[in-house]
Amino acid sequence: EVAPCTEFDKAYFHSYAHVGIHEEMIKDRVRTETYRNAIMQHRSSIEGKVVVDVGCGTGILSIFCAQAGAKRVYAVDASDIAVQANEVVKANNLSDRIIVLHGRVEDVEIDEEVDVIVSEWMGYMLLYESMLGSVITARNRWLKHGGLILPSYATLYMAPVTHPDRYSESIDFWRNVYGIDMSAMMPLAKQCAFEEPSVETITGENILTWPHVVKHVDCYTVEIDELESISTRFNFKSMMRAPLHGFAFWFDVDFSNFATSSTNNHSSSSITGPSNDPLTDGSQRKKRSNPNDALVLSTAPEDPPTHWQQTLIYFYDPIPVEQDQVIEGSVTLSQSRENRRFMNIHLEYSSGGRSFIKESVMR
Amino acid sequence: EVAPCTEFDKAYFHSYAHVGIHEEMIKDRVRTETYRNAIMQHRSSIEGKVVVDVGCGTGILSIFCAQAGAKRVYAVDASDIAVQANEVVKANNLSDRIIVLHGRVEDVEIDEEVDVIVSEWMGYMLLYESMLGSVITARNRWLKHGGLILPSYATLYMAPVTHPDRYSESIDFWRNVYGIDMSAMMPLAKQCAFEEPSVETITGENILTWPHVVKHVDCYTVEIDELESISTRFNFKSMMRAPLHGFAFWFDVDFSNFATSSTNNHSSSSITGPSNDPLTDGSQRKKRSNPNDALVLSTAPEDPPTHWQQTLIYFYDPIPVEQDQVIEGSVTLSQSRENRRFMNIHLEYSSGGRSFIKESVMR
Repeated sequence: EVAPCTEFDKAYFHSYAHVGIHEEMIKDRVRTETYRNAIMQHRSSIEGKVVVDVGCGTGILSIFCAQAGAKRVYAVDASDIAVQANEVVKANNLSDRIIVLHGRVEDVEIDEEVDVIVSEWMGYMLLYESMLGSVITARNRWLKHGGLILPSYATLYMAPVTHPDRYSESIDFWRNVYGIDMSAMMPLAKQCAFEEPSVETITGENILTWPHVVKHVDCYTVEIDELESISTRFNFKSMMRAPLHGFAFWFDVDFSNFATSSTNNHSSSSITGPSNDPLTDGSQRKKRSNPNDALVLSTAPEDPPTHWQQTLIYFYDPIPVEQDQVIEGSVTLSQSRENRRFMNIHLEYSSGGRSFIKESVMR
Repeated sequence: EVAPCTEFDKAYFHSYAHVGIHEEMIKDRVRTETYRNAIMQHRSSIEGKVVVDVGCGTGILSIFCAQAGAKRVYAVDASDIAVQANEVVKANNLSDRIIVLHGRVEDVEIDEEVDVIVSEWMGYMLLYESMLGSVITARNRWLKHGGLILPSYATLYMAPVTHPDRYSESIDFWRNVYGIDMSAMMPLAKQCAFEEPSVETITGENILTWPHVVKHVDCYTVEIDELESISTRFNFKSMMRAPLHGFAFWFDVDFSNFATSSTNNHSSSSITGPSNDPLTDGSQRKKRSNPNDALVLSTAPEDPPTHWQQTLIYFYDPIPVEQDQVIEGSVTLSQSRENRRFMNIHLEYSSGGRSFIKESVMR
């Protein structure tokens, strides 16, 4: 009952055979250094142990694990980049400790239980690419009871945004083009610029309220079927008067100690509470400087930028909101039926007595 | 015997239905203002006359022509952007003077001769997209004897380039990645980074010699079949000691007065001479500040950047060259057989006693 490898999966794996995507990820210092620090911080759980690196790419995380003293690392990747990973491992004289397996985690064979899973599986909006399913498969196939998963938790956030400059550059621009009124272009401009989610970097100043938790993932317990469709209701209260241009999504992941994970069960508590509940917000904010000093890799607008940036869903027209005005609604993120690597985003929102629905697809 | 509209042509036209490409072109002030200035400079040839705008896009050049006093402008575009062009024309109360024709120049009907053709047909490396053929078709179908074509001439240049920073960022980067020797990635990095032509902005400092004219196009006389394949031999002498990383291509177009064009026949003279012939070079440089004050839209590295940037073809490995070292060879640019909008680039070059061949495709 292994999921078949579709043509879409093949195209997905092939996209990782190009060097550019690995160069971009590796050059993202926030990403790569946080992973390295997390691996070194968990050295005591890695030393002398067996690790599997799910989607190893060029093999850099596997090498960090070897540097942290892993006895054996299975570096698994379905993309042809595994060929290069193997060359890198050989050139670094690590072939005795890092075993590159060129195939899907569903298909490759590992004849022992593993102590640690490390994986950099996060896509835009956390769940785009649907790679978390491979981590779950690896966990269910090979992870020892009491084993470690790095990262351990992931949280997807959303918040209402104002971004007058962006709107003006793309839309108002057409009002006066070298002295010509080209506003007849504006309907097409709105449709083209704002039909699909936009990956771009915004700042904390674009955010109108504290974020809402769309989904908290506990990598120890999450199962594949709960990722097919995720729904949440939100209820924001704007902290200022501004034109509301859309919603921003971002995530963070948490390299907790295993000890922490068994005592906290974030997943059930943080999905339900509305984001403007002060208690929920408090716990969200605390997570980022949590008492166990677990490392957090954050892609939030107020944190240093990463290659994930933030994902924006713009409305066709801004909604003017007053301070304390309520913005409420719901969002459903679901894997596209045609290609589970794509994500359908169904957004319903209302504010100031008007309601809207926006459907978009992240391809 | 009209060329059929292929699926590739449809995809090509469809790519111009998105607003982004028009926004980018219009926001390129060097491009748009040079066209506007050229149209205004030729006001005496446009006033009270009939114009056809080949590939009108949003219609902005047609409106400039109406502002310059054209009696009637046929704005032709095969892309659905023609629908918006028509809306823009209506909103500006120009429907009586600008007639938007949604179709290919091969297919639409214009029941009169035209005095002026204006078109912004240039692609990357001048000829990518093969849109010049549509200008030729329009000229052969409708242009009056003695009519004006804007722009009138186009010249494609090439020059050897050194670009150590770019090479280092993409290739040498892998030598030391967070302390790990990942140089096993370098063959893939070279292949991925340098297989296809790269559109990027360089500066005059990257150029090792005066440029060579690959092709000079006289829009009054050029015929479609001579664009299918263009070959030229080059013979450069490096003006400095540097690693040679590849060749850059760029172009300029010239909005000459018609009077000039009939007396000069650039096309036959400038293809043949090798670029390091001082006489040929002299005439090349002169063109850019020519005595008739014809406006030039230049995309050269030493001029202000445009959205065309420059097109670079990188070698897999740099060639060290000394001052005065000869770099010679040939280049053939041909329309791809599978899709004439694509361009095959066949490059043969030798220097310091070694010879190389590089094939690439611009898709």
